[in-house]
Amino acid sequence: MGDKKLSINLNRLMQTIDASAKIGSLPKGGIRRLALTDEDKQMRDLFVEWLKQSDLHVRIDDFGNIYGRTKAQNPEAPPILIGSHLDTQPEGGCYDGILGVLSALEVIRTLNDNKIELNRPVEIVSFTNEEGARFAPPIMGSGGLSGIFDKSFIFSRQDKDGKTFEQELKRIGYEGNEKDRLKDIFCYIELHIEQGPVLERENLDIGIVTGIQGMNWLEVKVIGQSDHAGPTPMSMRKDALLTAAKMITDSNRLILEQDNESTITVGCISISPNSINCVPGEVTFSIDIRHPDNQIRKQLMSEIRQRLSTIAIIEQVQIEMKEIWETNSTDFSDELIIHLTEEAKRLGYQYKKMVSGAGHDAKYISDMTDTAMIFVPSVDGKSHCQEEYTKTEYIEKGANLLLNVVQKIATVSNVNI
Amino acid sequence: MGDKKLSINLNRLMQTIDASAKIGSLPKGGIRRLALTDEDKQMRDLFVEWLKQSDLHVRIDDFGNIYGRTKAQNPEAPPILIGSHLDTQPEGGCYDGILGVLSALEVIRTLNDNKIELNRPVEIVSFTNEEGARFAPPIMGSGGLSGIFDKSFIFSRQDKDGKTFEQELKRIGYEGNEKDRLKDIFCYIELHIEQGPVLERENLDIGIVTGIQGMNWLEVKVIGQSDHAGPTPMSMRKDALLTAAKMITDSNRLILEQDNESTITVGCISISPNSINCVPGEVTFSIDIRHPDNQIRKQLMSEIRQRLSTIAIIEQVQIEMKEIWETNSTDFSDELIIHLTEEAKRLGYQYKKMVSGAGHDAKYISDMTDTAMIFVPSVDGKSHCQEEYTKTEYIEKGANLLLNVVQKIATVSNVNI
Repeated sequence: MGDKKLSINLNRLMQTIDASAKIGSLPKGGIRRLALTDEDKQMRDLFVEWLKQSDLHVRIDDFGNIYGRTKAQNPEAPPILIGSHLDTQPEGGCYDGILGVLSALEVIRTLNDNKIELNRPVEIVSFTNEEGARFAPPIMGSGGLSGIFDKSFIFSRQDKDGKTFEQELKRIGYEGNEKDRLKDIFCYIELHIEQGPVLERENLDIGIVTGIQGMNWLEVKVIGQSDHAGPTPMSMRKDALLTAAKMITDSNRLILEQDNESTITVGCISISPNSINCVPGEVTFSIDIRHPDNQIRKQLMSEIRQRLSTIAIIEQVQIEMKEIWETNSTDFSDELIIHLTEEAKRLGYQYKKMVSGAGHDAKYISDMTDTAMIFVPSVDGKSHCQEEYTKTEYIEKGANLLLNVVQKIATVSNVNI
Repeated sequence: MGDKKLSINLNRLMQTIDASAKIGSLPKGGIRRLALTDEDKQMRDLFVEWLKQSDLHVRIDDFGNIYGRTKAQNPEAPPILIGSHLDTQPEGGCYDGILGVLSALEVIRTLNDNKIELNRPVEIVSFTNEEGARFAPPIMGSGGLSGIFDKSFIFSRQDKDGKTFEQELKRIGYEGNEKDRLKDIFCYIELHIEQGPVLERENLDIGIVTGIQGMNWLEVKVIGQSDHAGPTPMSMRKDALLTAAKMITDSNRLILEQDNESTITVGCISISPNSINCVPGEVTFSIDIRHPDNQIRKQLMSEIRQRLSTIAIIEQVQIEMKEIWETNSTDFSDELIIHLTEEAKRLGYQYKKMVSGAGHDAKYISDMTDTAMIFVPSVDGKSHCQEEYTKTEYIEKGANLLLNVVQKIATVSNVNI
């Protein structure tokens, strides 16, 4: 490779990002483009047109995942897969997922421009319904491809109006063929915005993602005794919210004492009867625990459950705990991480290795092949909101890193992965 | 008076309570009888019939408050007023308010049965819309009578379907005349269920209520930063719920350190974005502070505001505090309390003097005349729910105490109040 540094065409990339931002655009600069809506169809149509303009062989599988493959000296060799997703949250930004797909397109356009001879094909993918905002669960298209979810499960998912995934996929004309699922993949690299504040605050260009944290979701119900706020002395109360507040502060303290890689989030809380002059009788809240190490996470989970039970006994309330989701951590490919690190160094980018706190298509695809991710900084760490923003200089660096790694892997026949 | 102890007819009283319980009855034994609904009208019709059967002079004022007055040697003398309210919460019990009105009716029936010669009239009242469950605020009929609320304010109150108090009062045919408002009252005694657990747990028959606590309602908004739960390290978060949890536990600790008369209740909480994998960006919660002593309560309120501000600074979040209601404590009539205490002793009842934590019609009527209340025990302290229950033996003792005090005051011309 030596010193040859390919560069993407930033203007062209920004034009495609702008074109995407017009489809489902919201007043404050964000996008509402839920999976399998008319806006999603409009975006898909434009994307397929772009793929064809870049001389790619376009396929659509039965989950609606869209692929575009380059020619190569060994056209039947397993391709290097790059991409992400084009759907958004109800009030989403212009970059989450989208940047991964459109950077991949720009990489292919640049390879074309430079008439790079590829040893094996490069394939772009846009996965269906990564966000899960209309049809739960999230990360559905890549989950279907990798066999995490059954086809019948995916097809039967309903939105809040009762429309099924299958109905809507057919309606927008994007139900492809099962035989067009991509089965044999050489490796998968996904570029994505960080969705957190770490890179920006540490003034870095790039995050080289070494894996995705495992997580547990727990639903905790605290059952005390609802009483009239006036006539019930403090000593006679069983206040479910006060108990929940103690549980929340205590669990946070436990996690903070652990290490700086553990996180705990209580994101949901509901209370009954929710009346200003009633002692709360029942409170339900969620706990989200994450850690890169599965064993430590499981240990933390068990400690937290114990701590909550102890508090319930002390406060003389009942507690019900229900584990509603668990997912193990994912380790990305060491070889791909080495390639990314070498290229980042060669390009002179400031980078760090980091673990992704959020799930991505790469999580499920890593069950099928060697996988890695590139993160670019998110301003203020914001995502899943209209304010989501990544500065142009980081978009350029991220796409250039993807380009140079893809070129390296695709042009060398005996690359070590 | 000597040893003469009058006794109510418990069977008859229980029959009227049962007859009331059938109007708006709910499956679990409670009542839904919101102010100015068809059920309220049905109850009023039956009540007026009962008043007439007891040979009372019935009047209805422009707020729909219903009065029934006995004859007396001095028919123009200010009456002894007894009663409460007949409306309920959406899922209310059979005793809150109702017991006060129907015990008052039973007192008058017993006075009639015993042909007691009254020096001054005894007057029964059922106030409109004490609960405030359909038309806010609560304690409206007595608040109108005592001048706390303007007539135009009361008449313009709307339920959640946009129907006004005035429309509904007229619809059910209970808009009486302004001239029929009761203006000159000798004294007011209201029997009510305790709505708290104190009497039951202390194994007492009667609470002699010396006043009603003052209270403050504060709305606290904590503004942190919403972030994705996965990619945001604990050290970079501004978690509004964690901060609110610290505020709730700390404020409770502060109140517990104060004395055993103070109460604090956080009854409402709402959270945004309320998503299991989002660090909460904004939390709003209510604080209800009560104390029998206005000065102590104001001092506590100020200490809590300071404490919350300090926590907000430490946690680097913003805080907005809004005082949404304040009401000073009410002291009931010392003389009436003495009469009640003497009669309770004479009847051999176990009693204690206590402060009411909840508001009642007696609160507003105490602005007009000497006022006091009799509490009877609530099983498990429950009220505002279908399980609300007061044992028959306590109903009997409460009504007998009311009877004997009324008889004492109504038959002695030079009674000291």
